[in-house]
Amino acid sequence: MNTTTPSVKWSEVTTRVRYAETDQAGVVYHANYLIWFEVGRVELCREYGFNYRDMEVHDDALLPVTEVRATYRQPARYDDQILIRTRLLKLRSRAIAFGYEIRRATDGQLLATGETHHIVINNAGHARALPSQYAALLRIASAE
Amino acid sequence: MNTTTPSVKWSEVTTRVRYAETDQAGVVYHANYLIWFEVGRVELCREYGFNYRDMEVHDDALLPVTEVRATYRQPARYDDQILIRTRLLKLRSRAIAFGYEIRRATDGQLLATGETHHIVINNAGHARALPSQYAALLRIASAE
Amino acid sequence: MNTTTPSVKWSEVTTRVRYAETDQAGVVYHANYLIWFEVGRVELCREYGFNYRDMEVHDDALLPVTEVRATYRQPARYDDQILIRTRLLKLRSRAIAFGYEIRRATDGQLLATGETHHIVINNAGHARALPSQYAALLRIASAE
Amino acid sequence: MNTTTPSVKWSEVTTRVRYAETDQAGVVYHANYLIWFEVGRVELCREYGFNYRDMEVHDDALLPVTEVRATYRQPARYDDQILIRTRLLKLRSRAIAFGYEIRRATDGQLLATGETHHIVINNAGHARALPSQYAALLRIASAE
Repeated sequence: MNTTTPSVKWSEVTTRVRYAETDQAGVVYHANYLIWFEVGRVELCREYGFNYRDMEVHDDALLPVTEVRATYRQPARYDDQILIRTRLLKLRSRAIAFGYEIRRATDGQLLATGETHHIVINNAGHARALPSQYAALLRIASAE
Repeated sequence: MNTTTPSVKWSEVTTRVRYAETDQAGVVYHANYLIWFEVGRVELCREYGFNYRDMEVHDDALLPVTEVRATYRQPARYDDQILIRTRLLKLRSRAIAFGYEIRRATDGQLLATGETHHIVINNAGHARALPSQYAALLRIASAE
Repeated sequence: MNTTTPSVKWSEVTTRVRYAETDQAGVVYHANYLIWFEVGRVELCREYGFNYRDMEVHDDALLPVTEVRATYRQPARYDDQILIRTRLLKLRSRAIAFGYEIRRATDGQLLATGETHHIVINNAGHARALPSQYAALLRIASAE
Repeated sequence: MNTTTPSVKWSEVTTRVRYAETDQAGVVYHANYLIWFEVGRVELCREYGFNYRDMEVHDDALLPVTEVRATYRQPARYDDQILIRTRLLKLRSRAIAFGYEIRRATDGQLLATGETHHIVINNAGHARALPSQYAALLRIASAE
């Protein structure tokens, strides 16, 4: 499996800002965007028939984050509807990367961008290849 | 092992309020007190030579929360030093309960009280007795 | 405004368990149910035309939690669809209480129950009455 | 005030991994390292006589995160003592950056590195200069 070029197709899912996600500056605390990134990549996978939970349970493969970057442009606020957009940035046999856009759903305003890089490990913590059936599903994603 | 009467001895540990723990009302979000309760009971156990991590790893025993109550009196605020006080409320072979006080460390002001009730299970999720060596350590706690 | 009897009508909203919400026991960490309770009561209010954000911003009224209780029956797990059911338990001019059921959406299995009690305060932290237009909306909820 | 070169001096503070911070992979969920970064920079500031809370309350200056990067090398685990090391990376009149190392305290093992970039704003959300007395304190930090 060779490195792919970034997918142009975005997967989209929405969430609403919880009071618990705000901080005393009256905006969403910045670490919570990483959780939204997680929500986004799980939904991208699901869209391509790839259930992350099943992969962990049945195929002994996990995708820990090895690197994360986020850039914050405008604050998200309590009760905002948030649009989480995710696309595949990189797909190798032992590494995956996703790119993200966080937008306010009502007007499309871009609030943040980011990316996460992942390796594939088994439950014992050793590097392994992405199970072939899951790799196949993501190759479809990356081709779109 | 019979039910014990509540311990009169409090275990104490301090923590400082993190920005991440505040919400847009300018105070600590109420769910975070439950995390402080967790910090408190782990330290109470440690004080009596009972390492909760070891019990999970080596003795196949977990203490999930079956019930929690918390009463909030005064808000905790960003950067406050927080005193977490914990005592044993109940000790049976298959169930434990802890009581808590959350105080502002600088002036002792009581901010919240609470209790958590726990059962003992193994990794497969089945009820079991508290491992005897840990029960023995907590009986010492309950006698003080 | 007199105390009302508990509403029989449940408001319902779903959410999916995030990886961030799990702990190393492989289940949802218990404090996160309190955040789901928050999601539930905000949606109950919205269903009756009561936008909690607006009330804070425009009407100088907040509803801090003064007491919470939760009972945990079965664990929620990663990626589960969760049904959050909320109803009004009590409505007074200066105090409100909500009751909750947390169910697994796929089979309706009851996972947890709980209640939260709230007072009404202004931004300066002083007790006040619930603004009349919001009280009116919730009286409709309580009558159903 | 010109841009400073990175400070060579690290500020250090420790914290213990909470159960709430773990996820079902049995390690600390990656977003929580950003909260540890926050703990680290607040302590660095405090070490130089710069109380972040006071600056927000009395001087109408906030330091929102505009960019964050984190690289994860080894997992942190439940109950680990964590050493958070922070240093000043950049100090301009309207922007600050901090660098971080997260180490396991018992053996010094490096677990993660990262950096956060901040701008200075007032409560209304407009860019402003760092209040001069705080800038002076950090210039001392950057000179060490």
